[in-house]
Amino acid sequence: MAEPTDANDTDQRLRLLIERVERLEEEKKGTADDIRDVYAEAKAVGYDAKIMRQIVRLRKMKPDDRREMEAILDTYKSALGLG
Amino acid sequence: MAEPTDANDTDQRLRLLIERVERLEEEKKGTADDIRDVYAEAKAVGYDAKIMRQIVRLRKMKPDDRREMEAILDTYKSALGLG
Repeated sequence: MAEPTDANDTDQRLRLLIERVERLEEEKKGTADDIRDVYAEAKAVGYDAKIMRQIVRLRKMKPDDRREMEAILDTYKSALGLG
Repeated sequence: MAEPTDANDTDQRLRLLIERVERLEEEKKGTADDIRDVYAEAKAVGYDAKIMRQIVRLRKMKPDDRREMEAILDTYKSALGLG
């Protein structure tokens, strides 16, 4: 059997890096599917998935940031007559 | 201790669903960070991360779809003088 050349080593290193990315991408897709399943389950028992996504987003924010955003949102709503 | 009311049960169910989503979102973010790390590692040993992302995308496609996309891309490139 021939010794691997430098080019082969490099190809192999690239292949391994690409395959690691691919495995991680698969994992990320699996988790995204799990998230979709939780929302589907929530919907099945009567919750509104769109509102839940908003709640997840709001809970991720710092309270000060959230309050500021809500204040600005109220200002814009008033400006546009969304009473 | 008071019995939980129906409203409390419902609130608790909503909270658990939201918390499951939040854990999964954390997990997804962790995986995305891992992917970024692999690209950083690849870059550190001399690979071009942008090209690697293209390779990952191309490897995900069915060969027929990939060849079709490449043919159309060539057509558009010719049309726009990207020899």
